[in-house]
Amino acid sequence: MPEGVDVLVHEMGLRDGLQSIETIFSTEGKMDWIRAEAESGVPQLQVGSFVPPKLLPQMADSADVVRQAIQIPDLVVSALAPNLKGAKNAMEAGAHQVGVVMSISEAHNMSNVRRSTKESLEDFKRIVEYRDSNPAYNDVCLSGGMATAFGCTISGPVSLPDVMRIAEQLLKAGANRLNVADTVGYANPGQVRDLFTELYRTVGRDVAIGAHFHDTRGLGLANAFAALETGVRELDASLGGLGGCPYAPGASGNIVTEDLVFMLESMGMRTGVDLKALLKARKIMECQLKGEPTHGTFAKAGLPLGFAYASAA
Amino acid sequence: MPEGVDVLVHEMGLRDGLQSIETIFSTEGKMDWIRAEAESGVPQLQVGSFVPPKLLPQMADSADVVRQAIQIPDLVVSALAPNLKGAKNAMEAGAHQVGVVMSISEAHNMSNVRRSTKESLEDFKRIVEYRDSNPAYNDVCLSGGMATAFGCTISGPVSLPDVMRIAEQLLKAGANRLNVADTVGYANPGQVRDLFTELYRTVGRDVAIGAHFHDTRGLGLANAFAALETGVRELDASLGGLGGCPYAPGASGNIVTEDLVFMLESMGMRTGVDLKALLKARKIMECQLKGEPTHGTFAKAGLPLGFAYASAA
Repeated sequence: MPEGVDVLVHEMGLRDGLQSIETIFSTEGKMDWIRAEAESGVPQLQVGSFVPPKLLPQMADSADVVRQAIQIPDLVVSALAPNLKGAKNAMEAGAHQVGVVMSISEAHNMSNVRRSTKESLEDFKRIVEYRDSNPAYNDVCLSGGMATAFGCTISGPVSLPDVMRIAEQLLKAGANRLNVADTVGYANPGQVRDLFTELYRTVGRDVAIGAHFHDTRGLGLANAFAALETGVRELDASLGGLGGCPYAPGASGNIVTEDLVFMLESMGMRTGVDLKALLKARKIMECQLKGEPTHGTFAKAGLPLGFAYASAA
Repeated sequence: MPEGVDVLVHEMGLRDGLQSIETIFSTEGKMDWIRAEAESGVPQLQVGSFVPPKLLPQMADSADVVRQAIQIPDLVVSALAPNLKGAKNAMEAGAHQVGVVMSISEAHNMSNVRRSTKESLEDFKRIVEYRDSNPAYNDVCLSGGMATAFGCTISGPVSLPDVMRIAEQLLKAGANRLNVADTVGYANPGQVRDLFTELYRTVGRDVAIGAHFHDTRGLGLANAFAALETGVRELDASLGGLGGCPYAPGASGNIVTEDLVFMLESMGMRTGVDLKALLKARKIMECQLKGEPTHGTFAKAGLPLGFAYASAA
């Protein structure tokens, strides 16, 4: 956790956002966005995905974006990788954190990364071994991403014991942190409270756990609050709510970064983010879109009278 | 609480929604909406406001609407009143519940109902006396509405002790229930949790307490979840998010009824509402609008695969 920050806001828009819209941002356009958002104080950005460019042309310049982004002082740069090859490329480009994603749902994992969850876990082990055997990469944080943890568009409900089992296996395989994702926008806050309560009971309080919510059915920030109440202190979000999942029809964007920051600061939780500067970054992102909508209410409503940023307890 | 219902959803659209938009619905148009929404299972609707028609022409037919709505079997019909005269008219029309509204913020109360909070409390006492002295009205539930409980667009932050003091005074004056309102969309879920925890501590668990949230800054459902976690079991909402406050610039609509019902049922809390039928009611409401926007994500995203309505514990 960066100094003076109570909750880590992890920007997803450049990956989860851009991968699901038509417009392909130029590398320079991505960098303008990244610089502006880093300038606003957002401490960590996921800037790309190391998948075959044929699958996601929007992510074709991910290595180049990572290489430029890691030049920005104090910014933690993360990238997504579906497999060993992608993870190698992400580390080579210099990513500080690599999110390796697998689904709890077998059907979703097969559809998303074309292998069983067992094979995904073995692949995760190989990624850890590769990281550990290359001294240059020893500081890279490997994040165990658990997609469809709250339900799946292909197979419906996902069982809590399955989530716990894969969480334990990811940690055993060497994951430095866990990221629990409501990939398709199925979660409700009661479920979120129950899942994270059980997860902390299972893996202990020392494991860094992040949460990733979509606002598909309007419950994104309620889910974020429920996660915070259980002790989660790392949250994924997307500027202007840009986002979705190309494999999950109907899934809308991540929770809105600026709305989340407003919620956290209002609740006395320091994010390190300046909201005015964040809205500037939003404009820089928006002016590159070709008709795609953005979301969020804070950009329209602004700060309440008498608002004060959170301060040290 | 109606039988088989865990959380009471109280529809606000016909009052808080219609009073803040340009379009004036015909009495028949309101009744079409009311019948469709009652048919979907929403157990309680606020159908009008007994204010001078010059101030709110949208509410001019409130007495007529109440008189027709109370003919619908099992529907609880509520109405808003700013003062004794309005409350008398609401009772005469046959409203089952009358919400008498005052603001915690002196400045907002003065602006909204042109009197001090002390005078509002004295007026509340007179309304209770009037109800008690008329046997025909003895069953009317008088709700003590506490506006701007989470902050005020005129005077900024509102103090927790002020909220507690007015809650106690309203109960002492004879209020049958309390309704705590984030009139201007300032609340955050941490604040909601703290306020209701303190309120139950102050007035006890036997007092029926409702919560009224606006989604001005995207935190409406997060606030609703926070209230539920403290024990609140009555929530105001507006179909399609129609709503606002004519005295609070920038305030957007109430939390969205269909999104709230989806959240509650997903969490295993029975509402008695059929979501498909509720979306039908939404269409009946929407087709009468003249360009005003509606909100909410459930109407777009639909039910998750494998969704089941809540069942008795």
